[in-house]
Amino acid sequence: MGFNRVAVLGLGLIGGSLLHAVRHAGLEVVGYDLDHATAAAAGAAGFPIAPSVADAVHGADLVVLAMPLTGLDEALRELTGRLEAGAVLTDVGTLKAPVQRAVATYGLGAHFVGGHPLAGTEESGWAAADPLLFRDAPWTLTLEPDTDLDAWIALADLVCDLGARPVPVTVTDQDAAVARVIGLPHMLAEALALTGVAGGPLGLSLAAGSYRSGSRVARTRPELVATWCDDNPALVDALDHVLERLTRARAELAGGESMYELAAAGYAARMDWEHRSFAPVELSPTREALLEHGSAGGWITAVLRDESVRLLGMRPEE
Amino acid sequence: MGFNRVAVLGLGLIGGSLLHAVRHAGLEVVGYDLDHATAAAAGAAGFPIAPSVADAVHGADLVVLAMPLTGLDEALRELTGRLEAGAVLTDVGTLKAPVQRAVATYGLGAHFVGGHPLAGTEESGWAAADPLLFRDAPWTLTLEPDTDLDAWIALADLVCDLGARPVPVTVTDQDAAVARVIGLPHMLAEALALTGVAGGPLGLSLAAGSYRSGSRVARTRPELVATWCDDNPALVDALDHVLERLTRARAELAGGESMYELAAAGYAARMDWEHRSFAPVELSPTREALLEHGSAGGWITAVLRDESVRLLGMRPEE
Repeated sequence: MGFNRVAVLGLGLIGGSLLHAVRHAGLEVVGYDLDHATAAAAGAAGFPIAPSVADAVHGADLVVLAMPLTGLDEALRELTGRLEAGAVLTDVGTLKAPVQRAVATYGLGAHFVGGHPLAGTEESGWAAADPLLFRDAPWTLTLEPDTDLDAWIALADLVCDLGARPVPVTVTDQDAAVARVIGLPHMLAEALALTGVAGGPLGLSLAAGSYRSGSRVARTRPELVATWCDDNPALVDALDHVLERLTRARAELAGGESMYELAAAGYAARMDWEHRSFAPVELSPTREALLEHGSAGGWITAVLRDESVRLLGMRPEE
Repeated sequence: MGFNRVAVLGLGLIGGSLLHAVRHAGLEVVGYDLDHATAAAAGAAGFPIAPSVADAVHGADLVVLAMPLTGLDEALRELTGRLEAGAVLTDVGTLKAPVQRAVATYGLGAHFVGGHPLAGTEESGWAAADPLLFRDAPWTLTLEPDTDLDAWIALADLVCDLGARPVPVTVTDQDAAVARVIGLPHMLAEALALTGVAGGPLGLSLAAGSYRSGSRVARTRPELVATWCDDNPALVDALDHVLERLTRARAELAGGESMYELAAAGYAARMDWEHRSFAPVELSPTREALLEHGSAGGWITAVLRDESVRLLGMRPEE
C-alpha cells in the first residue's frame, strides 16, 4: 500500500512545503487554500489547485489538513462524506488532542492518523515554503487503539520519503512532550523578550547573544504561539516544574547564595541532549513495538515490503 | 592622552582576544597568566609574556584585569604599589559592583575605570581567542563620581579603536541592565534545558529549534554562569518580574484561557528591540552628558582631539 494522489488543504509554510516535497517524492499532488491570493501563488508556481475542498479530495488517497486550527472545523464539515473509501486523513498541527477530538466529532476517526512535523521556522505563509523543510525533522504520527495500522505504516513510509523521521506516539505522550519542547520554550522566550528589555534603553543597547538566542522564537506570530500553547494541560505541569526550579534559584540568590546548582544541572541536561548517540534497529509492525520505540526516543528510517512488512529505525543507545 | 603599553592579566577568551586586538590596534602589549600552559601558548603565538604581575605592569600605562573573578584578590594584592603613576586600571568582568568594591579595598580606586565588553561566546580559554571578538560589541565603561574623566575618555578611545562601542554607565545601572540581558537569559536557558528534557527520551527526540535556541547558553561552563548571576541584587528583581509574568500566564492556561496576551507582548518587545534605529550625535565631555547618553541607549563612536576633546556617538532615535 502506498499513496498515489495527495491533497493538501491549506498552503502556508507547512502545507506549501508539503506540496513541493510530495511532488519532489514523485507523487501526484493537489492543493487548496481558502485564500485566493495564496491559491493563485501556488498555481503560478505550477501546482494544480482545486477550487474547493470537495474537488481537492476527489480521487485523493491521502488528505492532509494543513490549514490554521481556526479553519479546521469548516474543512472537516466540507470533507464529511466526500473522502474516498480507504483514503487516509492526516494533519500537521502541533497539538494532537484537539484535532483528534474534532475528527471524531465528524465521524472521520477511522480514516485518521494524526501527524506533526517538528519543522517550523519563524517564517510563515506560502512565500516561505521550502521543499527541504522536513529534512531530518522529527514527525510524530499518532497510534491510538483505533488507528488503522496499515494506514499508519503507509504514512510513515511517505514521511520517510520526504526525508523526515516518523516517531510513533500516543496523542497524550506527543502533547506532553510538545508542552516541554515547544510550548515551554516559547513561553520562556516571550517572558524573556518582555522582561529582558523592560529596564529601558540601556538594557536594549546591551542585549546581545544570550538575549538574542533566548528570545528568538518570540519573533513567531503570537496567534500561532497561542495555538501551540493553549488547550494543553501538560503545559501547565511543565510550567509548574520550571517555576519551581526558578523560584528555588531566586531564593538562593536573594539569600546571598550561588545559583551554581541550577547552572550545573542545566549544563548537564543540554550536554546530555547534544551528545546522544543512536543505533539502528529492526522493528516488527505492531502497535506495541512501535510505541515502545517512540517512547524510547526512536524513529523510523524505512518501511520494507518483501514477504512481509518490516520497519527499520534508529534509537538512542543506552 | 593615549596609551602606549597595555598589560593584560589573564589570557582566557577575553584577555587572549584583547592581546590580539590591542596589538592589531598598533599598541605595545604584554600578557600574563597564572597558568603556565596558557602563558606558553600565548608566548608561542608571538606575544611578550611577563613572568609575574609585577613584571607585566612595569612600564604599562594601562593594566587590564582579565583573570577569573576568583583570582582577582590575589592580582590586586600583587598590583598594589606597583602601578606606574598615572596608569589606568580596568577590568572586563560582567558585574561591576564586586570589582569596584575589591579595587577600593586595595586603595586603587583613583586608577580605576570598570569595563565590560559584551562579547562572550560559549567558548572559553586562550584557544578560543579571536582578534575580532569585540567588533561592534557594546562595552560598558563605568563613570562614578570619583572616576578620572580623562582616564575614562582615553579608555573609550581605545575601545573604539578595538572596533567596539563604549557605553557610559554607572556601576548600579550597568549591573541592573546586565541582570536583565545576561543573568536572566542564562537562568531561563538553564531552567529550560533541565525542564524541557526532563520528560524522558521522547522529549529529547522531539526537541528542535525552539529548545535548541532557548537553551543555547546553557552550554556555557556553569562556574562562569554563576559568576555572572551571583551577588547581583538586580537579578532578584528581574527574576521576580519574569516569575510574576509566567505565573499569570500559567493561571490563564490552567483556567482554560489563552496565553495570547503574553505572546503578543513578547512579540512586540522583541520587534521593538530589532527595529530600533540610530542617529549620530556630538557629546560634550562631561560626566552628566556621557551618562545621559548611555542611559538613553547610546554609545561612543569616536574621540576627537583638536583644540578641545569632543566625542561622537550614536543613539536611538525617539
